[in-house]
Amino acid sequence: MNFTSDNSFGAAPEIIEAMARANDGTVDSYGADPLAARVEGRLREIFETDLRVFLVTTGTAANALSLASVSPPWGTVFCHTEAHIAEDECGAPEFFGGGLTLRHVPGAEAKIDPDALARFVAECGAGGVHQTQPAALSLTNLTEKGALYRPAEIAALAEIAHGAGCAVHLDGTRFANAVVAGGESPADLSWRSGIDILCLGATKNGALAAEAVIFFDPERQAEAISSFAFRRKRGGHLLSKGRLLSAQMDAWLAEDFWLNRAAHANAMGQRLAAGLRAIDGIDILNAAAANMLFVRLPLAVHRRLRAGGAAYYLHPPSQTEDGDGAGVRVRLVCSPSTAPESVDAFLDLCGATMPVRA
Amino acid sequence: MNFTSDNSFGAAPEIIEAMARANDGTVDSYGADPLAARVEGRLREIFETDLRVFLVTTGTAANALSLASVSPPWGTVFCHTEAHIAEDECGAPEFFGGGLTLRHVPGAEAKIDPDALARFVAECGAGGVHQTQPAALSLTNLTEKGALYRPAEIAALAEIAHGAGCAVHLDGTRFANAVVAGGESPADLSWRSGIDILCLGATKNGALAAEAVIFFDPERQAEAISSFAFRRKRGGHLLSKGRLLSAQMDAWLAEDFWLNRAAHANAMGQRLAAGLRAIDGIDILNAAAANMLFVRLPLAVHRRLRAGGAAYYLHPPSQTEDGDGAGVRVRLVCSPSTAPESVDAFLDLCGATMPVRA
Amino acid sequence: MNFTSDNSFGAAPEIIEAMARANDGTVDSYGADPLAARVEGRLREIFETDLRVFLVTTGTAANALSLASVSPPWGTVFCHTEAHIAEDECGAPEFFGGGLTLRHVPGAEAKIDPDALARFVAECGAGGVHQTQPAALSLTNLTEKGALYRPAEIAALAEIAHGAGCAVHLDGTRFANAVVAGGESPADLSWRSGIDILCLGATKNGALAAEAVIFFDPERQAEAISSFAFRRKRGGHLLSKGRLLSAQMDAWLAEDFWLNRAAHANAMGQRLAAGLRAIDGIDILNAAAANMLFVRLPLAVHRRLRAGGAAYYLHPPSQTEDGDGAGVRVRLVCSPSTAPESVDAFLDLCGATMPVRA
Amino acid sequence: MNFTSDNSFGAAPEIIEAMARANDGTVDSYGADPLAARVEGRLREIFETDLRVFLVTTGTAANALSLASVSPPWGTVFCHTEAHIAEDECGAPEFFGGGLTLRHVPGAEAKIDPDALARFVAECGAGGVHQTQPAALSLTNLTEKGALYRPAEIAALAEIAHGAGCAVHLDGTRFANAVVAGGESPADLSWRSGIDILCLGATKNGALAAEAVIFFDPERQAEAISSFAFRRKRGGHLLSKGRLLSAQMDAWLAEDFWLNRAAHANAMGQRLAAGLRAIDGIDILNAAAANMLFVRLPLAVHRRLRAGGAAYYLHPPSQTEDGDGAGVRVRLVCSPSTAPESVDAFLDLCGATMPVRA
Repeated sequence: MNFTSDNSFGAAPEIIEAMARANDGTVDSYGADPLAARVEGRLREIFETDLRVFLVTTGTAANALSLASVSPPWGTVFCHTEAHIAEDECGAPEFFGGGLTLRHVPGAEAKIDPDALARFVAECGAGGVHQTQPAALSLTNLTEKGALYRPAEIAALAEIAHGAGCAVHLDGTRFANAVVAGGESPADLSWRSGIDILCLGATKNGALAAEAVIFFDPERQAEAISSFAFRRKRGGHLLSKGRLLSAQMDAWLAEDFWLNRAAHANAMGQRLAAGLRAIDGIDILNAAAANMLFVRLPLAVHRRLRAGGAAYYLHPPSQTEDGDGAGVRVRLVCSPSTAPESVDAFLDLCGATMPVRA
Repeated sequence: MNFTSDNSFGAAPEIIEAMARANDGTVDSYGADPLAARVEGRLREIFETDLRVFLVTTGTAANALSLASVSPPWGTVFCHTEAHIAEDECGAPEFFGGGLTLRHVPGAEAKIDPDALARFVAECGAGGVHQTQPAALSLTNLTEKGALYRPAEIAALAEIAHGAGCAVHLDGTRFANAVVAGGESPADLSWRSGIDILCLGATKNGALAAEAVIFFDPERQAEAISSFAFRRKRGGHLLSKGRLLSAQMDAWLAEDFWLNRAAHANAMGQRLAAGLRAIDGIDILNAAAANMLFVRLPLAVHRRLRAGGAAYYLHPPSQTEDGDGAGVRVRLVCSPSTAPESVDAFLDLCGATMPVRA
Repeated sequence: MNFTSDNSFGAAPEIIEAMARANDGTVDSYGADPLAARVEGRLREIFETDLRVFLVTTGTAANALSLASVSPPWGTVFCHTEAHIAEDECGAPEFFGGGLTLRHVPGAEAKIDPDALARFVAECGAGGVHQTQPAALSLTNLTEKGALYRPAEIAALAEIAHGAGCAVHLDGTRFANAVVAGGESPADLSWRSGIDILCLGATKNGALAAEAVIFFDPERQAEAISSFAFRRKRGGHLLSKGRLLSAQMDAWLAEDFWLNRAAHANAMGQRLAAGLRAIDGIDILNAAAANMLFVRLPLAVHRRLRAGGAAYYLHPPSQTEDGDGAGVRVRLVCSPSTAPESVDAFLDLCGATMPVRA
Repeated sequence: MNFTSDNSFGAAPEIIEAMARANDGTVDSYGADPLAARVEGRLREIFETDLRVFLVTTGTAANALSLASVSPPWGTVFCHTEAHIAEDECGAPEFFGGGLTLRHVPGAEAKIDPDALARFVAECGAGGVHQTQPAALSLTNLTEKGALYRPAEIAALAEIAHGAGCAVHLDGTRFANAVVAGGESPADLSWRSGIDILCLGATKNGALAAEAVIFFDPERQAEAISSFAFRRKRGGHLLSKGRLLSAQMDAWLAEDFWLNRAAHANAMGQRLAAGLRAIDGIDILNAAAANMLFVRLPLAVHRRLRAGGAAYYLHPPSQTEDGDGAGVRVRLVCSPSTAPESVDAFLDLCGATMPVRA
């Protein structure tokens, strides 16, 4: 019953096996191995377009390096107030970007409100050299609140951003979950909607540590791509034994493994949501479109869950285990490794002494 | 009738004369000239305490260098959403601070709301290394909206900041105006209220280009002071002929010149405010505590003023000269050089065809 | 017959197996897993002292993050002209260090000359704020030229550095080879000789991607350690699934695996050196103390080797495959995976048509 | 008898008077004043070409901001080992350039040796992303050792640099002295010889604090120019009352004032050199092409000079006042304010008890 985070689990066995298989023999180092080339080819097929890929070990590196590649130090990156880059990366974008500025845009369920974005973009940099200038829009899909952007929503935001000369970046830590949840193609959910750079995360979905930074339309983005290559090395993110990354990514992308994993995580999320909705006194606080739920639990339920060994995070973390009188608010994340039995056991604990709705 | 900004005016003749006087002979360079020592001594008297002073040419340099000296690159600096460091310095604090993060705190009249600050500080950095950490609180007095912090207000904010290990920085571009407007001593309005670093601006109040960065309690702040010295040089802000700065500052501080200048600017601001309040259809939008007014003008009045040669800025700058149906919103700044005749001429234009209130 | 670099090989099977074993179950993320604690304990035993460890994926990250943790942006890091941090990390120390300065010190076989260091240190920063200040000495053992520092040599250099307030950093990419080659204990070759920070590299010696940054005397270095923790996260180098790193390092350190691997690589290096010395016309250009040889080959020999499938790098890389009239200069690196048969096959090709010395 | 540095003197009275004249009335701030436009026009005439000018207060700011504008953070800037940017700016180029790298090139009299430059440039960045890349060549004329580059010498170095895609930057702190000493036109000594960016220093030659950063061929350098504008603001180097700078520069450039000043300083330097050459036991160590002499003095002479009130610096500064058995080595700088009487008094002290050559 671990609903803390996909990070608590190891990799899928298939990924470990692929790493072991790729381990034999000598290959070119620093990302020039044959598997890396195959990954790039596979991504071209999946995304139905030309692209350029860089592999790195963490989402923080993927986000920060790519944003730094499209923003000058005096650039403004628009992102949601609750975005991972704003809240959980210890200022990595500012560091890699030479002191660039994040501008926090509000919106429900951690989705950027288009009107707010339009207003913020219009105001940004109007003062000339006295102000930082519009440089990039960073979206997250799934959002930090587990919500889903649909292509039309992305396109509307991207249009505002492109109109101001911004690049559009997508933190795709849970992109696979978004593809599955919305039923759109990877292409429709990325470059066809206006995404210029996609940080496609495998780590939270079966890999140990592997993220693909994808530049679409590589000819147009040649300068950013060249910049990324130097920044990756200089940032200590160019692995000598690059097969560590390419082997993971190759196996993860093979035969829809990545999407099947996400589909399972989403299904577990929906199973959990359905079960919780049937229990009086428990409120699901977000749209729960995929595998992430934000839930208010009565204190008694929370204590029973803890006693029963259920692991999950309070959210926001500023709460205590005793809650605030109206129970505790928690985040429940289903991972590709979550078993239906874990979900059901969790639900049983939730419902044990609570009347179930007819 | 120039109400644009103190920046449009030259220096006071007394300042120019002092610069000319200080020009003769050879003296030690790089800030080791005798006048620099005298300035430090004079500031000790004015602020009734020990302190350490660095002189620089711009407010942006003063603010950014001092904040960088008390914040690590992964530090958070809390400031008002409309603070100069957030809006008008092109990311200088982030640049000098190695990618530090500004956290915008709301509050009326560009004064930081204590409850909001307490909440923001409590949330900041709770996630450990995943998040930037509380490092400094930056206040501005007079605020960007011309409002005045009183000592008790500063002390309340400083207490929150100090409780989280933050240094407290004051952007004192218009500190002289604040001293005069509130009637408190420089000491009461700074270190006695919890200010650790004061950027005391002379440029907007009679000098050509001279700002004093004052570290109070220098023994406790020895590390920040040492850091500042290297950062100033490395930032290109250590003048070889340091007398350029010390001569200005010495003359500016002599015999209450600085306070007398501010008193005049404030008096002109009050004269302007009183006049405008007496005119129907004109709204003063801020508290107008000193020399800065934010005013809504009917479009007809605005056009008459422009035709008559009055200079001032639209505020916010996103407006057009045609306003928004409800007139135009403008910023009116009185400088030490503003003549009463200019104020009266401005008021005459405002009131010409408008009925005056009984 | 691959003598290019340890990087061309995969990991040792034992390391891959350990990664697979560590993959099961849920553990705390971000470096708080039980294996990470075990690694720290094991290193305390190996180095016979208290210490604090951080794991990262690359040597560049290890070096740059640790140097940034002990140098202010206006610090000077003394290193050999041919050091990896100077030549092969694309300015990573300057980047992570906020623009710190590397000062290149000469010396034979990529070992820093003590007299040169003393002179450079004495001159450094004497101009006060006008100059960058002494901050760190960075050594490499084995050096980039395959030479070995002995404890007394390190102690002499560390004494000069410590006398100027510098921290002493060791790039230990091939530290295991140095331990084996010199026969000294890890403690004698590190903190007992004055090393404050050791970047212990496993990647070139059996791991896939794992480097341990070791701070000795952690109480004294508390500030640098805290700085490192934030810099690692902010640099994108804190892996969510930290077991990827701890599992490698745990297996690598177990039962002298690391030293046995290095012993094999060194033995292969010595076998190769002995064979080459017996062949007329081939000159070994370095001391060849361990597993790295720098060799001048007659052009005919070089061509025969290439035709026979031998892989190795020209060194310096500015040469062409046609050499310079006096043959070609090459670098030959033996890895833990190098088989004696490969060495012998290489020697056979070298000697085929060359008269062997009596 | 002050031969320490041009920095010990104030500004020329003409400059102070110009500042006073420019002080009246309101003008646009932040560099948009009419005098700034006139300065740009005047420089176009002087340099006989189109150009774009930015004014700043210090040479360090001028150098660092302009180098950062033409180098990526992973760029290498080639400069002489003794260049001011390498020795006396506390790492300002590295700071402004986001951690760029200076590569020290040797050469006599602080002039870069063309063969050494060619070799360094050829080696730079050949390793691809593992290495910093050629970005700029920085020359200094007069050099730090008082030597003069002639146009053909500059052209030869610039050709090497341009061939590697480098911009060519000239630290022209003493450019006026170089123009006068060589008798070439400003154009011949700058853009016609391949200089892309000239930092033209007035501070050491009559101004208080005024340096002009000149971009030649502004259309080609549009990107660097835009970058410079943001960097200047962000660096705190955009003065609100820009007339402080433009008034100085306007007066300095008027009617060959700048060249006449330099001519006087050079003449004093030559008078001093001629006098010293006539005295047994005194060695002039540099070519003494203009106003800077490096001289070895017998200890007795040095003591007599000190007793007589002569001010000058030991050079290198690591010496003590007691010298090294072979006397003391000193730097003697003649400024535009140096009177012939001072030179003669100095020479009298030198020669007092020393036999004068027939």
